[in-house]
Parts: sequence; structure tokens; C-alpha cells
Amino acid sequence: MPKALVLERALELSLREIDLPQTLARDAVRVRTEVVGICGSDVHYYKHGRIGPFVVSAPMVLGHEAAGVVVEVGGDVTTLRIGDRVCVEPGVPDFTSRASRIGRYNLDPSLTFWATPPDHGCLTPEVVHPASLCYRLPDTVTAAQGAMVEPLAVCIQATTKAQIKPGDIAVVLGAGPIGLLQALAARASGCSDVFIFDPQDQKLDIAAQYPGIHPLYARNGSPAAQIGTATGGWGADVLFECSGAAAAFRGIADLLRPGGTIVAVGMPIDPVAMDIVALQVREIALFTVFRYANVYDRAINLLASGQIDVGPLITGTYDFDDSIAAFERAAEGRAEDIKIQIRMPD
Amino acid sequence: MPKALVLERALELSLREIDLPQTLARDAVRVRTEVVGICGSDVHYYKHGRIGPFVVSAPMVLGHEAAGVVVEVGGDVTTLRIGDRVCVEPGVPDFTSRASRIGRYNLDPSLTFWATPPDHGCLTPEVVHPASLCYRLPDTVTAAQGAMVEPLAVCIQATTKAQIKPGDIAVVLGAGPIGLLQALAARASGCSDVFIFDPQDQKLDIAAQYPGIHPLYARNGSPAAQIGTATGGWGADVLFECSGAAAAFRGIADLLRPGGTIVAVGMPIDPVAMDIVALQVREIALFTVFRYANVYDRAINLLASGQIDVGPLITGTYDFDDSIAAFERAAEGRAEDIKIQIRMPD
Amino acid sequence: MPKALVLERALELSLREIDLPQTLARDAVRVRTEVVGICGSDVHYYKHGRIGPFVVSAPMVLGHEAAGVVVEVGGDVTTLRIGDRVCVEPGVPDFTSRASRIGRYNLDPSLTFWATPPDHGCLTPEVVHPASLCYRLPDTVTAAQGAMVEPLAVCIQATTKAQIKPGDIAVVLGAGPIGLLQALAARASGCSDVFIFDPQDQKLDIAAQYPGIHPLYARNGSPAAQIGTATGGWGADVLFECSGAAAAFRGIADLLRPGGTIVAVGMPIDPVAMDIVALQVREIALFTVFRYANVYDRAINLLASGQIDVGPLITGTYDFDDSIAAFERAAEGRAEDIKIQIRMPD
Amino acid sequence: MPKALVLERALELSLREIDLPQTLARDAVRVRTEVVGICGSDVHYYKHGRIGPFVVSAPMVLGHEAAGVVVEVGGDVTTLRIGDRVCVEPGVPDFTSRASRIGRYNLDPSLTFWATPPDHGCLTPEVVHPASLCYRLPDTVTAAQGAMVEPLAVCIQATTKAQIKPGDIAVVLGAGPIGLLQALAARASGCSDVFIFDPQDQKLDIAAQYPGIHPLYARNGSPAAQIGTATGGWGADVLFECSGAAAAFRGIADLLRPGGTIVAVGMPIDPVAMDIVALQVREIALFTVFRYANVYDRAINLLASGQIDVGPLITGTYDFDDSIAAFERAAEGRAEDIKIQIRMPD
Repeated sequence: MPKALVLERALELSLREIDLPQTLARDAVRVRTEVVGICGSDVHYYKHGRIGPFVVSAPMVLGHEAAGVVVEVGGDVTTLRIGDRVCVEPGVPDFTSRASRIGRYNLDPSLTFWATPPDHGCLTPEVVHPASLCYRLPDTVTAAQGAMVEPLAVCIQATTKAQIKPGDIAVVLGAGPIGLLQALAARASGCSDVFIFDPQDQKLDIAAQYPGIHPLYARNGSPAAQIGTATGGWGADVLFECSGAAAAFRGIADLLRPGGTIVAVGMPIDPVAMDIVALQVREIALFTVFRYANVYDRAINLLASGQIDVGPLITGTYDFDDSIAAFERAAEGRAEDIKIQIRMPD
Repeated sequence: MPKALVLERALELSLREIDLPQTLARDAVRVRTEVVGICGSDVHYYKHGRIGPFVVSAPMVLGHEAAGVVVEVGGDVTTLRIGDRVCVEPGVPDFTSRASRIGRYNLDPSLTFWATPPDHGCLTPEVVHPASLCYRLPDTVTAAQGAMVEPLAVCIQATTKAQIKPGDIAVVLGAGPIGLLQALAARASGCSDVFIFDPQDQKLDIAAQYPGIHPLYARNGSPAAQIGTATGGWGADVLFECSGAAAAFRGIADLLRPGGTIVAVGMPIDPVAMDIVALQVREIALFTVFRYANVYDRAINLLASGQIDVGPLITGTYDFDDSIAAFERAAEGRAEDIKIQIRMPD
Repeated sequence: MPKALVLERALELSLREIDLPQTLARDAVRVRTEVVGICGSDVHYYKHGRIGPFVVSAPMVLGHEAAGVVVEVGGDVTTLRIGDRVCVEPGVPDFTSRASRIGRYNLDPSLTFWATPPDHGCLTPEVVHPASLCYRLPDTVTAAQGAMVEPLAVCIQATTKAQIKPGDIAVVLGAGPIGLLQALAARASGCSDVFIFDPQDQKLDIAAQYPGIHPLYARNGSPAAQIGTATGGWGADVLFECSGAAAAFRGIADLLRPGGTIVAVGMPIDPVAMDIVALQVREIALFTVFRYANVYDRAINLLASGQIDVGPLITGTYDFDDSIAAFERAAEGRAEDIKIQIRMPD
Repeated sequence: MPKALVLERALELSLREIDLPQTLARDAVRVRTEVVGICGSDVHYYKHGRIGPFVVSAPMVLGHEAAGVVVEVGGDVTTLRIGDRVCVEPGVPDFTSRASRIGRYNLDPSLTFWATPPDHGCLTPEVVHPASLCYRLPDTVTAAQGAMVEPLAVCIQATTKAQIKPGDIAVVLGAGPIGLLQALAARASGCSDVFIFDPQDQKLDIAAQYPGIHPLYARNGSPAAQIGTATGGWGADVLFECSGAAAAFRGIADLLRPGGTIVAVGMPIDPVAMDIVALQVREIALFTVFRYANVYDRAINLLASGQIDVGPLITGTYDFDDSIAAFERAAEGRAEDIKIQIRMPD
């Protein structure tokens, strides 16, 4: 039996052997995992044992941000070969479903997803997965970068919804891993200037290293006031809400120009108070995203071409044997931590 | 001095002479008003003396839904002639403003609008207005229908935002004048079936007269349950929120299919509680509208071609001399009343 | 062995027994065909033995416009039952292909399609087909109407591409079955007025029976001149090219307003001369369509709701035993013939 | 009388005094020109005396790519001050026209444009122009760069039409000034990789200096073959046709993926042969552009933010006194020349 990082129940992790499906379907590959990133949802399951309706009622392997190497291919697989380096899209839809047919397989209700109860994740040395959801990494993209494709994919999905026009001005609320990746994705997609807000200055300091990304330090006034000044009173073209904080929605319309766009990326636990009339008088549109569809190859392209540099966001790396310590650290939520990854055994 | 229906202050109307601008600019026309409809906003000003930040602090002529006849043309006007029957777009933007240049002149902050303080409305026998905002009515469209173009324009704006695809299923929440016009506009724009909900059965009875428009009587279960049954559990493609009620947003995502669209037409006074996560898991988009731009000619086309029949929605007509009575009736908000209009003197 | 209408080679049809696949896959249904329409492509194969690269090199059953009744269901089928009345989408894609995943399964190169060599069509009493491509017909839609869904789907696809706004003015070039259905689809999707041109007056006479559809008789001047008059010199919003004639593209920009849209529905055999600069000075967009994806249910909705009445377009019906005569008649291309259908044996 | 570069007739240029409008309207500014770029259209007028229907029938000042300094402001101007450095949008529309109101003022038939007969251009030390069409340059953008905003604006317009999604693969046909700027604009707008073709290797060598821009040298096979290899047979997402050559349209669909997009930027003099069916089987959309609307600020943003570096494209600079020599050089069309600019007197 393979070893895995298992969430037994809220606040209890084990690094132990567990019985996992090992059979290789004809359209699947076996991937030896190299690097697995820790996502906020992993930490949330660890701390609370649930996310909304998804409850951990049996031991579950964590992790859904993986890069690795193909070590075995099913009989029908023609697109991958043993030795190919890949990153893995963790959601498996039914491609014949009604949602899939209209190009939105991420919305298929029958989709299964790594480390979302009752499905196990990838913090284990080997996983089997449909070949068509494993994407080859170019030589120039490392496994650590490849394991960043999953969270980056969320931001590419959000960026695509925003229908950015070249030279747009963007605002990002929240500078956690998703907020920072969102800022990079927006800038790489044609925004000339991306303004980012977070109550923690240290996170903004990381953002400020990137050209074209401008921190909105709380000490300099409200985000709305700072954006007003920067845009001559017109407002930003697009806003990505990545904090998931209810407070972020208060006065959100004031940040935007007439006809501006909001994309809700962060997931607020409770309903938020939304001033509809404030949106209406500027005819602001609100788009929402849920994971991603058809963007993994795009995310890889942008990493490989050098337009998005995720390196500075990987702020900690632990060995698989220390993965419980990695989760404890992640659970601390230190201001200087962005993405913590786990390096799997060779 | 002309006579007009003047709102002196909240709850006090006079039909009296008042000093109004009479000068005809070179690009303007003088229109003798024939029919003026009473809008919910007129009634709201009458009852409360304000709508949000817009406060009636001086006597103001009411009315902004007008059709009439051109009786004088300015020196530069080439598009209209004396005797032309027209309906009038009541908002006057600066067409060189930044918002106007991107095609969204309705969002120009400098726009003035009839019967929005401090600007007077059109419940008076003659008005002067830019010729380019007066639209000729075909012979087949009566003045009473022409005065319906203004509220219909709101719904055409909302329908345009919804990017309806032929054969879409729509839901309309609220069956006041806007909700009913919205249902007609959605159906005329390619929705095969429009389901409409209102707590007042009498309003739904009016809707039920139209082919393809299906009432969701409260007695038959929740709107979500009824839509679920009608769509085999998939959900509607698009939802028009026309009630302006905060309660309408509760569970709103349950009415929609994955990838569905909401257009917020009604204006809730206070912030509403919005379940962002419920929108996200279906990647629902929310569009908002504020009045209209570039749709008057479209609304007239749809009336003239017979695709939208507003006749059954005009449920009461008063003479100008009885316009205070008309407002008192409108303020009652009877279930059987939809649109009350005032016929101006010949 | 079942009997079928077989195209042996160009100009040679037989009504004879032929060996066809009869095995029912677990996700398939067996449909007893009731009505099969004759498409222009069927006639083209009959007359020329090929359409471009698609060459009839072995005997092939014709027909791809079918409605019928489910007589057997595969073991995994949950959406259909014996006795269900259905119409059938004739193209079968690989739903896991790259094109399918982005919602465009009609563009999957591996797609097979009835009566496109080397695949057999449906002019035979029974066919087996994936259940997920068979769409239930409401009681109000007859089998004859149901067999019109296939050509109507092409027009719904084209209409969807056109992104019609309510109150648009459309032009349709060509008044064969596709042109006429396109006019109906455009009108049902929010065009207030649809102008249709064809050199054959008799076809326009059929169009003229419908409200909102206006024939452009050649005797009244060029289409551009007539549209110019009808739109005050502004031009139409959208144009559907349904003739497939190279000549239709000459001067095509003159029919459109600045920012107008062309959808190329008809398939011209040879390259056409296109005046790019004429398109540019009005920034006209040209969309193209290839069959359809995700529109069958929409087409059925529009038939069931009464928004599209295909009845007047079914101008001839033959028994299956007379299907060779039906093809000979269709091959004549009489001005008064629109759609000829074949009624299959009970 | 001011001095100007005057095209007397085809092939005859004078640097001489000429009577030009000098009156400053209340909404206008006077700009001292600093740098003026030479456009292909200037050269075309010089060589042929006409472009299509636009015929030089009287002496005309050339030039429409200008940056300079405000030296006088009209009485109503609030947005600019003396001393402001600006670049100038050369087309002046009627902002109240029907095309302008829908946001497409570039399509207003009444628009006048510098150096398009009968209107004079800007190759003269001072010009008067509406203030609202003069855009302030940040300190970091030089006058030479500012004079590149005009051609860049064309490419931003084209890029906007293309609705690029992050990680798209683009192809540019033609590597003249517009082709090269288009490649930069596409890359800056989210394309991870831009492939560019031109028969002249020297132009591609310039393109190859930029990261993410890949030359398609003719010696390496056809563009279609090279794109096929680079995309694993799938094709590019978007193609910008910037050569204006009829030959470019031959086989153009083969470069694109199913559902791909073409933007026609170059202006072919004669109608081109277009294979509609080849577009249809991939449902390719063709967008066209004519100059630009609402993009000058965007182009400046992208220059200022460092996302687009036009420096390497400015391959020659002449003094105003040598501007005839500059035109003679430009008319040679040397492979190593991209953009030639004229520096105006201090």
C-alpha cells in the first residue's frame, strides 16, 4: 500500500499507508508525483474538516496541485509517453454531460476533484489519472512551476471572463497566492497597470517586485481614493475580488469606471451585502468563476513564454516526510508565506 | 406661462402654471405632448420626495414617458419636420464625454434627465428637446404606444445585455410594468418560453394572456421548484430581476442553469444579501442596467413590427386635468393596475 | 436486411436491401424513422456523386433529416424510453476531443455524419444512434416538423453567431429552404424586420406570407438600393448569406451599416472575390458556420412555442416507396418547391 | 504663412509656405509638432496621388502621426495646459452622429482625417486640433515614441477585435511597421507566442529580437507547415493579416484552429479570392478594422508601462528640412527600413 498524507479528521493528519485505487484504465496514465503545492482549501479542510457542504467524513488524502512524471501509460493513450513531465488537472468531468458539451466541463455536477470529499488527493508518490487531463511541461518549466499551474489556472479562467482589452487598468483585492497570481495573469493579459490591495503590507511588498503591479498600501488611503487619483477620477476597467472577504464588496463599485467589470474569484463563506444600485448606475457586470476549463495549456504557455514568473511566490518547500510540518506552517497563515510546496520522494 | 403637473414637495401635487425654459436651440425641436405615462419613479418622488440621493428640494414637473407631435424645429434640424409624430428619449448626455465615446452615453455623469431633480419633466403641453433624441413614430404606432417606448427601452437594454440565444428559457421576477414589458421583450428576442413570478396573481393573469409567457403562481410551489420541473432540472438560461425586492436575490442561483445569466433591472433600495458562492459554482454572470442607450429605435421597430404588443398593459388613461387623480390612483398600487397614462390636451 | 434508399453512384438510386449496422450499443437507441427530409446535399450527391472532397465511392444510404419513434433502448440509456418521439442529430463527435471540450463538437475532425461518405444516412426504416443525440419532441410538434429541425438547426447556429440585438434589421440572401428558415429564425430571434432576396419571385412569395419578412423583388431595384431606402441610408445590422452564390458577395458591404455583421451560411463551391477594403471601412465582421452544436433543443423549443412555423415550407411529401421519384423531383429544382419530405412506412 | 511638406501632385513634393487654418476654436488647442512619422499611406499618396477613391486634386500637406507640445489652449479647454506634451489622434468625427453614439466614431462618414484628401496633414510646425483628441504623454514616453501611437493604435484596435484569451497563439502575416507593431500588441495582450511571416528575412530578423515573437522564415517551409508543427497540428488561435497582399488569403484557414479568428488589418487594393468553405469547416470568424476608436489612451498606457517597446522599429530620423529626402527613402521600401520619422524644428 502506498504512503500518503491523510486527513483523518479536522486537525488530525497522518503520513501513513492507505489503500488507493491503482488500476490503470486504458485511457489513463500513472504519474509519479514530484511536487505538490498546498492550497488554501487543503488547509481549510485540515482546520475545519469541511468546506460548506463538502464534509470530510472518512480519511482523505490531501493535495490537488501536482506536477510529476509519467511512469506508465494505458493501452489507448497516444498523447503521452513514459518519461513525459506533466502537470495534472485534478477535476475529472463526464465529457458527454450537458455542461461539458457547451464547453463548460468544470460545471458538470458529476465532476470529481482531488481532495474534495469523498475523493482522495495527490499527496502520495503515484497517482492514476485520465491522460487527457495530464499536460506535458516544456523543458523550461520546472516541476515546482508546474505545480503552480493549478492555482494559476483559476486566475487564467478569471482573466478570460474579464475579457480584458489591451491597456486596461485592473484592481486586485487580496494578495494571497490567488490574488498575486491574478495580478500576474491580468498584467500578462494586456492590463498595463494592476493595482493590488491587501491589509498585510508584506504581501504587497512581494507584489511590488513585479513591473506594472502597484501596491495599494492601506496607509496611503482607501483603495477607492488611490484608484481615483491614479485614473483621474474615471476608475479601473476591471476588478478581481480575490480576498473572499465580505468587506471587500462594500463600496466596490466606487473602484470601477462606468461599464467596468468585477470578477468574483475569492469565495466568501456567507452571503455578502451587495449594493445593486451602485452597480447599476455604472452598469457594472459581475462575473463568477469556479475552477477552470480549457485553460491548463494556456497557463503552461504563459509560464513557458516567460510572461508569468511564479518563482517569487514559492516561499517554502518541504520534503514529503515533513508534510505535516508543512501543513502546520501553512495553517499559521504568516504574512510572509505565499505558496508552500511539498517535494515528493524520488 | 405653461401649465404643468408640479410636485411641490412629497405628497403635494399641483396642476398649475410654472416658468419653464421655452427657448428653442438650433438643434432642438418643440414637441406638443400627446400622451405621458406615469412611471414608478414619478410615484416614488410623489410619495417620498426623493429617490436615494436625488431629492426634490424645489417644485419639479413630473413625467418622462412622452409621445407627441413636433410643432417647431430649430434652425439646424434636418431630421424632423413640423407635424412629425415622435416619442422622446428623456436623458440628454454630453455626446463628447468619455462614457459617450465608448457608446455608453447613459452612463455620462453629466446627463440630465426629465423629472430627476433638479430637472423638470414633461407633464406639460409643450417641451423643447434635442432633435436627435426625438424618434419618429410610424403611422401604425399610436401615441399611447409611443409613450410606452421609454419603459420598454429599459427592457430592451436589459435584453441586449442578456445576450439571449434563440430558444433560451427566461425567468422574470416581478410583474409590474417593467417585469411585464421585460417578459415581452425577452420573448420577442428569441426566448421560446418566459416564466414570470409575482406574489400578486392578478398581475400574472395579465402575463398569461400572451403566448409563450408562463405565470409561476405562488400556489404552485416556489419559482425554483417550478423552473426545475419545467427544465428537467437544468435551470433557466437567463433571469431578469424586475422586482427590486431584496428577497428576490435569495436562492436566485437555484433558478439558473450552469453558465446562466442574471440581469438586475429592478433597483433595490438597500444592499441585498448575495450568495456569491452559489453564483460561482454555476459561474453565473450578473449584468446591471441603468436606463438605456441606443435602443429607442429598436424599441419602436419591435412595436411597429407587431412583435411586442403593449396594449393590454395600458390599464388606465386620465385627462391632463385629472392628472392628480391619476397619481393618487397610481400611488394606490392596485394589483390590477399596470400602466396608467395621461392624455394631454389637444 | 433492411431496405434503404441507396445512392449507387452519381445519378443512380436504388430502393433495395442493404447490409447496415444493427447492433445497439449500451448508450444508443433504435429509432423507427417516420419522416425524412431531402436536403440539398442529398440532391448534390445524387447529381454529382461528390461534394468537394467527399466522394461517393461505394453505395451509400442517403438522408440525414429524420424524426421517428424510439423502439429499443441500450442498457445504459436513462434519458429516453420506448415510444418516445424524437428527432435525431445526425453528426456523432468524440466528446472528449479538443474541439468538443471547448464546446464546438461540430468542428471535431473525427465527427461522422449521416449520408456523408463513407457513412450511411437514415432513409431506411430503422436506425441506431447515440441516445444523447436524439431529442424528444413535444406532442405539439409533428414528425414532419421534427424532420425540419435538422435544417433549422443550421439557421439557429447562424443566428446565434450573429449575436442579434432586439430590433435589428436583417437581410437574407437566397430563399431556398435554408434561406427561408434563416429568415424565420432571425425574425424569431429579435429582428423586427427581415428582408430576403432571391432571383426567383415564387420563393419570395412564400416568404412574404410571414409577418415581418419582406421580399426584395429584383424588379424593385438592387437589394442594396432597397435596403438603403428601408433603413434611411444606414444599412442592415446583419446579413445571412444563404445562396452560396459567388455573386452574392459582390457589393455585400453596401447592404450593411457601419459595424454590421455577415454570417456565411451557404457554401460557395469556389473561392469568391471579396472586397476586404469595403468590409474594413465599415468594420464588418464575417462569421461562418458549419452545421451546428448545442442547438437541437433550442430549435425544438422555438417550434414548440410557435415562434417558428415551418408548415408552409414543406411543399411536397412522398411515400418511402416513391423516394426515387421524390429525388427526381427535388433534382428539378422547381421554383415552387421548398422542402420535400419522405414519409417512412409505419 | 507656415512652412509645410506639401504634396503638389503624384511624385512632386515641396517644402514650402502654404495657407493653413490657424484659428483656435474654443474647444481646441494649438500643438507645436515635435516628431511626425511617415506612414505607408503618405508614401502611397506621394507615389500614386491617390488611394482608391481618395484623390489628391489640390496641394495637400502630408503626415498624420504626430507628437508635440501644447502652446495655446482654447477658452473652453480644461483638460490640457500650455506645455503639456501630447500625441494627436488625427481623425475628427461628429460625436453626435449615429456611428459615434454606438461607440464607433471611427466609422462616422463625416469624419475628417489628416492627410486624407481634401484635408491637410501635420507635417508643419504647428497644428490646431480639438483638445479632446490630444492625449497627454507621460514623462517616460518620448516624442518619437509618442508619434508611434498612431500606427500602434491601429494594432490595438485589431487586437481588441481579436478578443484574445490569455495564452493564445497568434500569427501575423507581414512584417512592415504595422505587422511588427501588431506582433508586439498581440504579445502584450496575452498571446504567449506570436509567429510572424514576411518574405523579407531582414524584417523577421528585427521581429526575432523580441521575446515570444517567432519568425517564420520562408526557407523553413510554408507558414501553415511551420504553424502545424508548432501547435501539434491544432493551428493558431488568431491571425492578423497585415500584409494587404491578396496572396496572403490563399490557404489562410490552414493556419488556424477550429474556431479561430482572422483580423484583416492590411488593405488589399483589389478584391481577394476567399475560400469561404475553408473558413466554414473551421467556423473561422473574420474581423476587419478601420483606424481606431477609444484606443489612444490604451496605446499610451502600454508604452508607458513598458509592455510594448517601439524603439527598435524607429529605423531612421530626418530633420524637417530634409523631409523630401525622408520620403524618397521611404518610397524605396528597403527591407531594413521599418519606421522613418521626421523631427520638426524646435
